[in-house]
Amino acid sequence: MAFITINKKNLISNINTIKQHLNSIKSKSEVALVLKDNAYGHGIKEIASIVKHHTNNIFVKNHTEAELIKNDFKNITTFYGIPNYVHKNIITTIHSIQDIKKIDFRLKDIEGLRVELKINVGMNRNGMLVNELIECIDFIVKKKIDLVGIFSHNGYSDNLEMQNEFEKNQNEFEKIKEMVRYITSKQGIKVPRFHSLNSSGALRVRECNDDLVRIGIAMYGYLCVDLNLKNNLIPILKLYANKISTKILKKGSKIGYSGMSEVDKKTIVSTYDIGYGDGFYRLNGKKKVFLPNGKEILPITSMDCFSAYTNEDEICVMENADYIARVFDTIPYEVLTRMSPFIERKII
Amino acid sequence: MAFITINKKNLISNINTIKQHLNSIKSKSEVALVLKDNAYGHGIKEIASIVKHHTNNIFVKNHTEAELIKNDFKNITTFYGIPNYVHKNIITTIHSIQDIKKIDFRLKDIEGLRVELKINVGMNRNGMLVNELIECIDFIVKKKIDLVGIFSHNGYSDNLEMQNEFEKNQNEFEKIKEMVRYITSKQGIKVPRFHSLNSSGALRVRECNDDLVRIGIAMYGYLCVDLNLKNNLIPILKLYANKISTKILKKGSKIGYSGMSEVDKKTIVSTYDIGYGDGFYRLNGKKKVFLPNGKEILPITSMDCFSAYTNEDEICVMENADYIARVFDTIPYEVLTRMSPFIERKII
Repeated sequence: MAFITINKKNLISNINTIKQHLNSIKSKSEVALVLKDNAYGHGIKEIASIVKHHTNNIFVKNHTEAELIKNDFKNITTFYGIPNYVHKNIITTIHSIQDIKKIDFRLKDIEGLRVELKINVGMNRNGMLVNELIECIDFIVKKKIDLVGIFSHNGYSDNLEMQNEFEKNQNEFEKIKEMVRYITSKQGIKVPRFHSLNSSGALRVRECNDDLVRIGIAMYGYLCVDLNLKNNLIPILKLYANKISTKILKKGSKIGYSGMSEVDKKTIVSTYDIGYGDGFYRLNGKKKVFLPNGKEILPITSMDCFSAYTNEDEICVMENADYIARVFDTIPYEVLTRMSPFIERKII
Repeated sequence: MAFITINKKNLISNINTIKQHLNSIKSKSEVALVLKDNAYGHGIKEIASIVKHHTNNIFVKNHTEAELIKNDFKNITTFYGIPNYVHKNIITTIHSIQDIKKIDFRLKDIEGLRVELKINVGMNRNGMLVNELIECIDFIVKKKIDLVGIFSHNGYSDNLEMQNEFEKNQNEFEKIKEMVRYITSKQGIKVPRFHSLNSSGALRVRECNDDLVRIGIAMYGYLCVDLNLKNNLIPILKLYANKISTKILKKGSKIGYSGMSEVDKKTIVSTYDIGYGDGFYRLNGKKKVFLPNGKEILPITSMDCFSAYTNEDEICVMENADYIARVFDTIPYEVLTRMSPFIERKII
């Protein structure tokens, strides 16, 4: 059966790379880790089991994901969805005044509900505008629930050429922080935690006064922006397949759907148990993909398997998602999150 | 929260389309259904709950999938993997003589083990050659386990232009059937069931003497070959997203990563909770995708959401995987199997 390995040592090393950078710029920001979308396809439970010794601050997609790891961390923020229960370790993100009004304030232990407010600073995607923010804080104070954090997301982090826009967004967030400090002091509630930077944002700044940085892709060993520190990050996931069957084919034999791959000399060919149904891209003959051992994945690939001119019992299919991302004109995030959750993960 | 609907009526109608075709060519083949790869991304448990009243013959990827539905059907064949237990409803596919020797014959109830043999008839992918087949049957008789079936897969079914190769493969299987009938009569064991055709194979032939046809993609409403009957098939899956937040943006505002989408007049924009982390293709601006309501999915899309110039609370993201497959130069199989198993499935 195909399987995925997760390299614990590389994962810790990647977290340390971030921490060292923050130290080097004299930032006191804590490293929070993003485990959303099944930990970017790596396996949320497996990644949680490693990083629970390294942080208390986690970000996940929704309450279904939070449920899987709720006992491992003290602060698990869900990015989307309004819960129908209160759990002491789970923090709910509020994107709008409509969102906060969806909370059922008759819930058991409702005074223990913890929320973070997502602010739009210029990406114009999710998050509320400044006027909504003031209304939301008022509402939170009135309902006596817990305002844990205020955060934004900088949509220009991955683009070094748009330094102006990146800075404009960060300045916008600084203004919001000041305003929130003023409002909370007036309301007599504690100042919430502030955070705005993802992996590339955290690694490109020379100054960071936020309380947290939210590290996702860099923890998994990738970065989509050309910073020196990128070379210190090591991918932690490798995908392996096992052999299904082997044949010796004579010259002229054809392999796979529509017989697209034709054998040019007597050769050995084997099939392996990874296909596009496992989340690995389908090859239709227009793009070439080679295994780490140099052998080509022969087109047309199937839902459950591929063929290659080799005879190994177990074979590494992918050790670097950047390579697959380049072939398919996308980013490693997409390649990784596609990995089927049904493939076994082994921590090594 | 995003969700998927599975249309029960369309599913039954698609199965009936296959049955009617088999009747029209006077074939006595039974319709077996392929529920592998999470029922081609539709949700194996949900699809099983509908089709359990329509067939007893199911094909899945491996024993993990078989476990999920083992009480719903009498004959569940796993295509890959050798089990470490015996279950009366589960049939194991054997691809080679090496495969059959991996079985642990000391297992409890081993005499109840049921196997099917996969034969290579020209696709040169999985399955054994004729000489291995004879050795395998000998071995099965000696070990007193149950030979349930012999099957092949025609790699030219989806290609009408390669009619010769398609027929050559089918003729090869007919010869194997004859040989197996001879061997089993000599060995004094019952003749196993024979099957060789998938959806497009079953729908293109004018004659079929097999015991089963294995219907996958057609049951889900698609066919990758231009046959008249394709028009009778109706997709059964629709993908829906829910709104996360809405903004009114002024002219010149930019949306998403690197601000790629620029607003050309004052407009309303909303984000919805489907992204590439949910298995929907990522849009980086080079390819355009429109929602069924005609609105564009604005690039660059995110892992968990996309933006569109609309304000609906709930929106249909995909109702036909053929459209998405054409945009991304692939087949609906890949689009469908990518759908995250974490999205809720609702049977309607």
